[in-house]
Amino acid sequence: MSLRERLRLYVITDRRFRDEVSTVQAALEGGATAIQMRIKDAPTREMVEIGKRLRKLTDEYGALFFVDDRVDVALAVNADGVQVGPDDMPVQLVREIAPNLLIGASVYSLEEAMKAERDGADYLGVGAVFPTKTKADARYLGLDGLREVLETVKIPVVAIGGINHENVREVLRLGVDGIAVISAIVGAPDVKRATLEMRRIIDEYLG
Amino acid sequence: MSLRERLRLYVITDRRFRDEVSTVQAALEGGATAIQMRIKDAPTREMVEIGKRLRKLTDEYGALFFVDDRVDVALAVNADGVQVGPDDMPVQLVREIAPNLLIGASVYSLEEAMKAERDGADYLGVGAVFPTKTKADARYLGLDGLREVLETVKIPVVAIGGINHENVREVLRLGVDGIAVISAIVGAPDVKRATLEMRRIIDEYLG
Ligand code: NI
Repeated sequence: MSLRERLRLYVITDRRFRDEVSTVQAALEGGATAIQMRIKDAPTREMVEIGKRLRKLTDEYGALFFVDDRVDVALAVNADGVQVGPDDMPVQLVREIAPNLLIGASVYSLEEAMKAERDGADYLGVGAVFPTKTKADARYLGLDGLREVLETVKIPVVAIGGINHENVREVLRLGVDGIAVISAIVGAPDVKRATLEMRRIIDEYLG
Repeated sequence: MSLRERLRLYVITDRRFRDEVSTVQAALEGGATAIQMRIKDAPTREMVEIGKRLRKLTDEYGALFFVDDRVDVALAVNADGVQVGPDDMPVQLVREIAPNLLIGASVYSLEEAMKAERDGADYLGVGAVFPTKTKADARYLGLDGLREVLETVKIPVVAIGGINHENVREVLRLGVDGIAVISAIVGAPDVKRATLEMRRIIDEYLG
């Protein structure tokens, strides 16, 4: 399966809703194809310990495993890759120090998308498609902005930002490769069920 | 010059007192032999940008350059090494993902010191020798605890924690390889002068 296909349903952890291990277990049971561990302001040792558990779980389900921002933690837990945004390590520098990691770039404009592709990112997280409060550093791009990116770049695009079960079809229609979700899954009362339902809708479009 | 000799006067940045670049410039002019960049809760990109400037400065003065906690930042800025404590990445894991970095282990007991040496640390930061508020995670070890460590381990020992111009002789008498300082230098009105004076006292003992 290609990277593009494995990015279909990308679930990002958020401990403000739920702990990482129970989130990921349920999301994998529900059909998540990629997981991103996103932890802010925790000690490195805690990130490494949780990351090792998530690596084990994602391996069991054949899912991709990414770490937000922290290249050191990604290397230490043998993650598939790292996700970096404008405040994180530049893509080219990540490539230099960790040549074997997949690199996802979080971009919030067409210009950032083009630059990340030029810099060698393996895929893009593009948003915010809808207004969101979950990621404080995310800027609003909108559906029109996303369409422009999709018309311009060649690497896989995962849409992110305020996507839920009600509005996800509007995003899928544009031809994205994957949907990244935080609150509509991690904040749902039943994470597995919310993932199953999201996966079902995505599969209608991506086949 | 051996690692042991290059650890003689080890200055740790603290932006609560002063920004990293002006601190390090002045400390190097005053004779610091090793610098540790210690930044908590700043974006990775900011750490990388500042780290590159400190790497350049330390190179100009022939000083060692360490990064606190962040192996990814240490690799990205081509630091000589990284300093890890009980909440950071374990020493053996650092060695695996970054075999070319020097590893300093922050230890707060004889048991931790022995374990860090066994795990392959290149040197130890041992403390707190005196009570301190600068490092929230530092536990009090005292001069007697430091003496026990010095009698037990073979790798270089840098003493840390509440050391200033008044009490440093008590520490040097025990036979440490280096003195690590935060507030007595970074918090001094004149960083260069405070470093010169500390270096002069250290050289009286270490020759
Ligand atoms: Ni980030």
